[in-house]
Amino acid sequence: MTVFTSPADFVAAIEALRSPDADSRAAAARRQAELTKPPGSLGRLEEIALFMAGWQGRARPRLDHGSVVVFAGNHGVAARGVSAFPAEVTAQMVANFRSGGAAINALAAAAGLALGVVALDLDRPTADFTTMPAMGVDDCLAAINAGAAAVSPDLDLLVPGEMGIANSTAAAALCAASFGGTARDWVGPGTGVDGKALAAKITAVDAALLRHRAAATDPFEMLRRLGGREIAAIAGAVVAARLHGVPVLLDGFIGTAAVAPLAAHRPGIVDHCLAGHVSAEPGHVRLLARLGLVPLLSLDMRLGEASGGAVAAMLVRAALAAHDDMATFAEAGVASA
Amino acid sequence: MTVFTSPADFVAAIEALRSPDADSRAAAARRQAELTKPPGSLGRLEEIALFMAGWQGRARPRLDHGSVVVFAGNHGVAARGVSAFPAEVTAQMVANFRSGGAAINALAAAAGLALGVVALDLDRPTADFTTMPAMGVDDCLAAINAGAAAVSPDLDLLVPGEMGIANSTAAAALCAASFGGTARDWVGPGTGVDGKALAAKITAVDAALLRHRAAATDPFEMLRRLGGREIAAIAGAVVAARLHGVPVLLDGFIGTAAVAPLAAHRPGIVDHCLAGHVSAEPGHVRLLARLGLVPLLSLDMRLGEASGGAVAAMLVRAALAAHDDMATFAEAGVASA
Repeated sequence: MTVFTSPADFVAAIEALRSPDADSRAAAARRQAELTKPPGSLGRLEEIALFMAGWQGRARPRLDHGSVVVFAGNHGVAARGVSAFPAEVTAQMVANFRSGGAAINALAAAAGLALGVVALDLDRPTADFTTMPAMGVDDCLAAINAGAAAVSPDLDLLVPGEMGIANSTAAAALCAASFGGTARDWVGPGTGVDGKALAAKITAVDAALLRHRAAATDPFEMLRRLGGREIAAIAGAVVAARLHGVPVLLDGFIGTAAVAPLAAHRPGIVDHCLAGHVSAEPGHVRLLARLGLVPLLSLDMRLGEASGGAVAAMLVRAALAAHDDMATFAEAGVASA
Repeated sequence: MTVFTSPADFVAAIEALRSPDADSRAAAARRQAELTKPPGSLGRLEEIALFMAGWQGRARPRLDHGSVVVFAGNHGVAARGVSAFPAEVTAQMVANFRSGGAAINALAAAAGLALGVVALDLDRPTADFTTMPAMGVDDCLAAINAGAAAVSPDLDLLVPGEMGIANSTAAAALCAASFGGTARDWVGPGTGVDGKALAAKITAVDAALLRHRAAATDPFEMLRRLGGREIAAIAGAVVAARLHGVPVLLDGFIGTAAVAPLAAHRPGIVDHCLAGHVSAEPGHVRLLARLGLVPLLSLDMRLGEASGGAVAAMLVRAALAAHDDMATFAEAGVASA
């Protein structure tokens, strides 16, 4: 199990940038060329098969042990009226995940994925980051390690998700700190705010940037000052997955914003990640472009919980089924072009 | 079982335009509003649930009996060198479908769909439509009825597909006859032609349009003169599905071109159809726009066989899982916005 012993140890892990297995990827490419279809005619499904082969180190990659892990945290900035929902909803939704009634329960099951839920000190919200760092050093490192601990090295695919009232406010701040711009460039309606709440959200993000931008000089400090526990946990999970060679399927705006500080530091840290979808949250399309990730789905989803990632995992399953189960031209007695 | 007794009977069936069940759709919309998520946050998954509810006439639509049906036919125009593959490949791929080695076998299984294969007189190609109608009246009507016969009224979802060397040439001709333009507006690389073969394809389509455009005044005549048996069968299946209230998930350029003559006659005939994906074939994006259909997926696929439709069926499954399995705010004890 991966444990980051200090902020510097976490940053060093980001910089390690493990490579995919070139031989497995090349073997998968040779197999694709022999399957009974015109070359390239399965489009991105073929790319996914090669991506999974490289990161799993298997010419015939599999999705027998895929897992969604939803991390939940509460945010001090919620008190500033930035969300359409009260902060109690975070804990209520965690209970809903555990009793099986949320969207992610239905979608993970439909995609054949296990579902883990990690609630991070919900009764102790982070500090209001407009006035101080969201977390102390130990608190942030603990959240990052909670994410890393959720990544089993034998996972075939990790789909990290999040729940946390007000966390699209933190996500917008992290995007601006990572890639520039002001609150207006990154803030959107989240769960559905407009008018006064949207204005409060913009004000909060600009205040946070003013307070923390100069000090947020590395990925750890960005996550600590502007993030939240569930966001730091996703960052920890993504870095741990890279160390283990576990491919990752990212979800929406907040789940993707969690890797923004890492990618601003080392762009290659997202090489083991697929973008599951582009959400209706307007900052997400801009964020994916900055990360160089092309989303698999565009379905106007904006729920979080890993919901878009879980649906996209169905495409990974389709890609691997075609890669593994199709006959070659020789096996089928079909003339090739 | 639907049998169209004459070309006029088929055209009358297109004009019948059965409506979806408004009460079931409204009940599904009420349920969506009560599920534990911000309103609309599942985006197109919510729309799919309502679409399926309306056409199935069930507030909680299901996908227990979904089926891919791949229709196969051979084309006289193949002799003009318009494809990268020899005409024998049609029969070879039908054998591959039947022995389980094609992409559609893997993808239909991954999506939980049954797979039917209907080979239409493969040893008797249609006539070369650059010189005469592709089919006689009885031949075309038989192909349409073969498609209609493949639609069981108790299907939850129909995903029609096609296989037929040279059929993207016929599809381009049907699009031009239905919606205007010349060969260059609708012809693309198909399975991967360029240079001389692409030029032959454009020449063939323009010759066919010159010969048949004036006489192709109704959907039946368009299909008979410019289509092929597998294309006419898809048209018959889509119209039969409408008569039975069976929702349809369209596949790529050729499968969608099969409904172009119907929609040129009555645009509402595609109301029970979802566009599974937009293919890499350049005419497809234009065709979907003319039909008013927004594709669920855009994955650069260009294989046919219903492969894109089958992958999109996974999204329908996700949509129905969320609709059926999620808890309401009241059931879960979650505060709504």
